[in-house]
Amino acid sequence: MSRLKPIEYADAPPAVRAVYDDIKTSRNLKDVNNFWKYLAHDPVGLRRTWESVKEVMAPGALDPLVKEMIYLAVSTSNGCGYCIASHTAAARKAGMTDAMFGEVMAVVGMANETNRLVNGYRVPIDASLE
Amino acid sequence: MSRLKPIEYADAPPAVRAVYDDIKTSRNLKDVNNFWKYLAHDPVGLRRTWESVKEVMAPGALDPLVKEMIYLAVSTSNGCGYCIASHTAAARKAGMTDAMFGEVMAVVGMANETNRLVNGYRVPIDASLE
Amino acid sequence: MSRLKPIEYADAPPAVRAVYDDIKTSRNLKDVNNFWKYLAHDPVGLRRTWESVKEVMAPGALDPLVKEMIYLAVSTSNGCGYCIASHTAAARKAGMTDAMFGEVMAVVGMANETNRLVNGYRVPIDASLE
Amino acid sequence: MSRLKPIEYADAPPAVRAVYDDIKTSRNLKDVNNFWKYLAHDPVGLRRTWESVKEVMAPGALDPLVKEMIYLAVSTSNGCGYCIASHTAAARKAGMTDAMFGEVMAVVGMANETNRLVNGYRVPIDASLE
Amino acid sequence: MSRLKPIEYADAPPAVRAVYDDIKTSRNLKDVNNFWKYLAHDPVGLRRTWESVKEVMAPGALDPLVKEMIYLAVSTSNGCGYCIASHTAAARKAGMTDAMFGEVMAVVGMANETNRLVNGYRVPIDASLE
Amino acid sequence: MSRLKPIEYADAPPAVRAVYDDIKTSRNLKDVNNFWKYLAHDPVGLRRTWESVKEVMAPGALDPLVKEMIYLAVSTSNGCGYCIASHTAAARKAGMTDAMFGEVMAVVGMANETNRLVNGYRVPIDASLE
Repeated sequence: MSRLKPIEYADAPPAVRAVYDDIKTSRNLKDVNNFWKYLAHDPVGLRRTWESVKEVMAPGALDPLVKEMIYLAVSTSNGCGYCIASHTAAARKAGMTDAMFGEVMAVVGMANETNRLVNGYRVPIDASLE
Repeated sequence: MSRLKPIEYADAPPAVRAVYDDIKTSRNLKDVNNFWKYLAHDPVGLRRTWESVKEVMAPGALDPLVKEMIYLAVSTSNGCGYCIASHTAAARKAGMTDAMFGEVMAVVGMANETNRLVNGYRVPIDASLE
Repeated sequence: MSRLKPIEYADAPPAVRAVYDDIKTSRNLKDVNNFWKYLAHDPVGLRRTWESVKEVMAPGALDPLVKEMIYLAVSTSNGCGYCIASHTAAARKAGMTDAMFGEVMAVVGMANETNRLVNGYRVPIDASLE
Repeated sequence: MSRLKPIEYADAPPAVRAVYDDIKTSRNLKDVNNFWKYLAHDPVGLRRTWESVKEVMAPGALDPLVKEMIYLAVSTSNGCGYCIASHTAAARKAGMTDAMFGEVMAVVGMANETNRLVNGYRVPIDASLE
Repeated sequence: MSRLKPIEYADAPPAVRAVYDDIKTSRNLKDVNNFWKYLAHDPVGLRRTWESVKEVMAPGALDPLVKEMIYLAVSTSNGCGYCIASHTAAARKAGMTDAMFGEVMAVVGMANETNRLVNGYRVPIDASLE
Repeated sequence: MSRLKPIEYADAPPAVRAVYDDIKTSRNLKDVNNFWKYLAHDPVGLRRTWESVKEVMAPGALDPLVKEMIYLAVSTSNGCGYCIASHTAAARKAGMTDAMFGEVMAVVGMANETNRLVNGYRVPIDASLE
């Protein structure tokens, strides 16, 4: 069983093209990333995911750079290679410097360490935190 | 086998008290959280962890609020109840509003969703991201 | 330190060959997958794992296709590349269509998103669910 | 810092009530679960999440029972207590018997075991699976 | 939907009792832990799981204390509260001291930290490690 | 956006060289692994991580082989490919035989299986374990 192939713009049905067009316009890109080209095998899921990502990542109470760094932090913690690559790129595009990247990694590492210390020592939640 | 008990200041050996004192001074607290009182069963680990946390969470290229939100994001992704409670509190103390909290959660949720879509669709990294 | 090599049928000791033979007969295969050829370095573990997999994946209250899709869903959530590849193939062999694959992915993505929202919002279990 | 409180229907703003109403109608419930009452602190996220869940869990290439069992499988693998409780209930409502529940658990357990064996033995993907 | 109840010895069918008896004899216990009493809802899974655990945890190339500490380390990393409690108890029974427990936790924490640093920095495997 | 490049000794600033020197001396190596060469982009994090690893992995209540096997067990459970490769090598150097490796894997697999069974069956902690 061979793996799925990416669906290029030229081969995409109209519903998929419409999403590709919106991604390209919104992000000022010549072509969409592989993520969208694979997800296009499920056109309904493609549209839903893009609409959600667009809404979640828009400027709001947090600026887009902070959001991208949080996305990168979670992807790093989950060990998703593709996601780390694409959100490192997106965060850099939004202004993440080398020093900021290093600090994101340091916090992610520290959080993963202390999360496990909490688990193993079975630390109960302080009354002041409830 | 009963679980470990927290080590209170009054019962702590000098090496532990020194760490407790530094935590209380650095964070302007009357007492340290349960996390430190349990970790105190390993005084060397207590000191090492506190020194690391203090260094990692200090202001740098990222401000403390952003660091706390990243810590919260990772803890939420890992499902560590204590860590979510304590870092939600720390982030709020550093200025996180309800709207900011909602956006952190939205990004964490979205990252966890798309991380799995990437895995399942076996998306190869775009050449432009290497 | 180089990585382990797969143990081919021709080089396998009798205890390993017996398991390979049972896998090939049960699944109507000419050769076993790499998974078994690596696990063969621990012949006792190989036998135990195969016996367990055979028992768990047999038709029962759930049909084999549903079981394979659940296996794929968990492997996708865990980010195990080999497991995703092999259980996508197994599920397709058992009848999973492209549309079914897309829906498995959609559910896996959604579950991973909402699992984290539950964690971060610290949602208590409804009395009706206890 | 005390934790967020659930937002009850009587106290909810119109945008939240509209979502609650749609959930209650779609699922024939008298009241919505805690999940929605906490998520309501982010009305935009509440609406987006509900629209996505409704679309993903609707009957399609897979029937709702299979979808609920996959949701349960992922939640079990992730260790999300609330999610396990709510999706066990939802799966039972959709027809999951005790025997089916036992088999879902068995597959989830086996997948988590073999996922790690694959990781540790560093099993390369068979050419036939690419 | 209420949760499953544990199946006590007095109420257990013969196939379940046989497993309970073997657990009690093998481990010199008066009663089995809750884990087995819940798993007993799936008698076939109960037997398979017990046979596997008994085989894996028996003395071999590693002594039982080391195995219990590895079990505890993984359970701590996964955040499984019950498993941490039961395998801390089992490891203590096998000889784990407070100092050994502290060191297990320190290694688990460090491994979780560095695993994420590796992910985020996208560190390629050294040729010498292949 | 291209990925970071490893920082070789010849190109490293003095603070990084000092850490490289200490790693090479402590571990009797001609060159440090890629892990350190990437982490060197954050010199402060490099030093902190190395000091912590050195302290945690030193002989103590547990011997270095046991610590390396626990590190490997956690890395295997997390699915960190680089970490599995490097800590398999380190554990072998410290004396891990093929049989010991097989048993580590078997315990890791079993722990991951039973952790999920505990989650799904919602097993409450026995009073004797509290």
